[in-house]
Amino acid sequence: MGFKAVGIHAGIKPKKKDMALIFSDTPCEVGATYTTNQIKAGPVRVSQEASRKGTVQAVVFNSGNANACNGVQGIEDAKAMTQLTADALELKRSDVLVCSTGRIGRRLPMDVVESGIANMAATLSYSGGRAAAKAIMTSDSKHKECAVEIQIGGKTVIVGGMAKGAGMIHPDMATMLACVTTDLAIEKKLLQKITSEVVDETFNRISVDGDTSTNDTVFVLANGVAENTLLTKEGSRVKKFRDALHYVMSRLAYSIVEDGEGTTKIVDVCVKGATSDHDAKMICEAICRSPLVKTSWAGSDPNWGRLMDVIGYSGAKVREETVEIFYNGAVAARCGEEAATPLSLIRREVKKKRFMLTIDLHLGEGHYEMIASDLTEAYVTFNKSE
Amino acid sequence: MGFKAVGIHAGIKPKKKDMALIFSDTPCEVGATYTTNQIKAGPVRVSQEASRKGTVQAVVFNSGNANACNGVQGIEDAKAMTQLTADALELKRSDVLVCSTGRIGRRLPMDVVESGIANMAATLSYSGGRAAAKAIMTSDSKHKECAVEIQIGGKTVIVGGMAKGAGMIHPDMATMLACVTTDLAIEKKLLQKITSEVVDETFNRISVDGDTSTNDTVFVLANGVAENTLLTKEGSRVKKFRDALHYVMSRLAYSIVEDGEGTTKIVDVCVKGATSDHDAKMICEAICRSPLVKTSWAGSDPNWGRLMDVIGYSGAKVREETVEIFYNGAVAARCGEEAATPLSLIRREVKKKRFMLTIDLHLGEGHYEMIASDLTEAYVTFNKSE
Repeated sequence: MGFKAVGIHAGIKPKKKDMALIFSDTPCEVGATYTTNQIKAGPVRVSQEASRKGTVQAVVFNSGNANACNGVQGIEDAKAMTQLTADALELKRSDVLVCSTGRIGRRLPMDVVESGIANMAATLSYSGGRAAAKAIMTSDSKHKECAVEIQIGGKTVIVGGMAKGAGMIHPDMATMLACVTTDLAIEKKLLQKITSEVVDETFNRISVDGDTSTNDTVFVLANGVAENTLLTKEGSRVKKFRDALHYVMSRLAYSIVEDGEGTTKIVDVCVKGATSDHDAKMICEAICRSPLVKTSWAGSDPNWGRLMDVIGYSGAKVREETVEIFYNGAVAARCGEEAATPLSLIRREVKKKRFMLTIDLHLGEGHYEMIASDLTEAYVTFNKSE
Repeated sequence: MGFKAVGIHAGIKPKKKDMALIFSDTPCEVGATYTTNQIKAGPVRVSQEASRKGTVQAVVFNSGNANACNGVQGIEDAKAMTQLTADALELKRSDVLVCSTGRIGRRLPMDVVESGIANMAATLSYSGGRAAAKAIMTSDSKHKECAVEIQIGGKTVIVGGMAKGAGMIHPDMATMLACVTTDLAIEKKLLQKITSEVVDETFNRISVDGDTSTNDTVFVLANGVAENTLLTKEGSRVKKFRDALHYVMSRLAYSIVEDGEGTTKIVDVCVKGATSDHDAKMICEAICRSPLVKTSWAGSDPNWGRLMDVIGYSGAKVREETVEIFYNGAVAARCGEEAATPLSLIRREVKKKRFMLTIDLHLGEGHYEMIASDLTEAYVTFNKSE
């Protein structure tokens, strides 16, 4: 599919892989979404400029240092990473995107970065994706990859991605990075639209999406090597690609929650019957942010009273006497009061490693879903120190 | 000062005290603030009605059961509590306020409550305050009381209060109850105004005030027994009372944070230099809600990068390059970047059991302060099950 990659230990971290490079044989259209945090890391600012302008051909990554909150120097260092990469690959600086992830507020060791880039440029290979996926990890316990093959207009198209995500609750440490590559031929504006939409349905639905870090970045690079007829407007072919991208991104997003710090449980939170989708979203987010709810999940405690409390302060329009709460199929609360279901039956559902929590407000058609993890002692221990 | 009280074990909880009664020899003006949660417990609805209308003369409390999310029956049970109390004390039902705290979604055992009320009415005494303060506790490790004596217009006035508060983060379990009694003579409207203002400066500034529970209630009862000239408008006498009420409420509020579940550290969070007080408040609240920030406090880790992240997503207007962050006097970040202060000096401040975290945005005059606790493994363990 015309993409090479590599992941190496350059020396930013003491031992583990800490730099990655992705290179396309031909220029790529790029769709990108970035953190909405007002405090953006240097690499985010530099990549934003490059991805807006035109095609790109490479992405350089480092882990172990977010290059965030480093002022003007941080932007200069991010630019230097793209320039060094461009020089090594005989590209223009604007052909190169850059992502950093790790601790905030520390300068990048540019000598290490420089020799790392030279090393990577010399060792790129078509089979380097796995190593790259490992090199972008921070507190991840496993690397995250997913790829699918689809047929578009008689051509075989591959959509493959890697991601890293450490945090369970508030993203921090430049938390979420993902890069999807495809050999599809697609027009830039359309690719950007689909990227934004699918990110909103996947990466923005895990844990607490409202709390964006300084470095969150998702790239989709499309180099057109599949030689399908260029996609320029919505239709069944675009839908096929969109579905594939949705599959890849939702798998990667799920793997981030599953690998969340200290996670022992995954909960699919579904709010329906709200006055609007926006109201449903407010409740979803408030639930996924509540330490009391998340600790009750960790303890397999079907504490629906805590949910009622969150629903009530979420800001969404609610009527106490119409609220229904289900754990998988078992109804715990009906008409805002305890339901007749035996507690033992509800407990059985909440004990499962993954369950669906459904809240029906019975007020309208508003609907939203998120995937969240529990809050455990292990999470606290992990985050107490760097 | 003309107030009697009592606290007993009625039988709602297995062993500990679980009901309290406060009774004034004469009718009291009442100032009250209630939860803003849309889902309000039965006793909140019943007390709201009574406190709005006129004077009151008694407050009946129970712990161990919040009487929240019990539908129409919950309201009927709360009304029954006031009626039973009124009957026992020869009052009208509207003379009695009611507060419940404990698990949400369980019916009150009304037979136990009934005999408890009869028992309490028979054992009220001028020295029963301590027992009452103990009887309203839920997961509190100690009872919370505070009283001061002031001179107003040549008369000695006492302002005394009790509170209970369990939660460290999101209030739950009908979290915060407080009742302040005073023998001051003061006009109702003025008392209500001062109560609302002082609650906003004290109880609403601890931990995550945005997340109100179903039962949060603060009462100030003033029975006029001190025989000062009735206070009817602002002035130096009212200011004296206001200061005393502020002292009592801030002490009680502080004791709630100090007694927070699993708390090992108390942090005074001060945001200044914001474009508006509202913006400063948004940052304060986002900081006090962030698990990553709260866990870093637990680990005595001066992780100012996490603070920058929160500041950036708080919704307040910020400029990265003007942010300053101090731990007590030690500057950790300046101009949005790491400051030159040796890390060992900053660590020394963060290691203290209580420290002041100051964030200066250098954008304007906006200012806000809160008191927050850390997030520890013990908090998670405590909240994993009921």
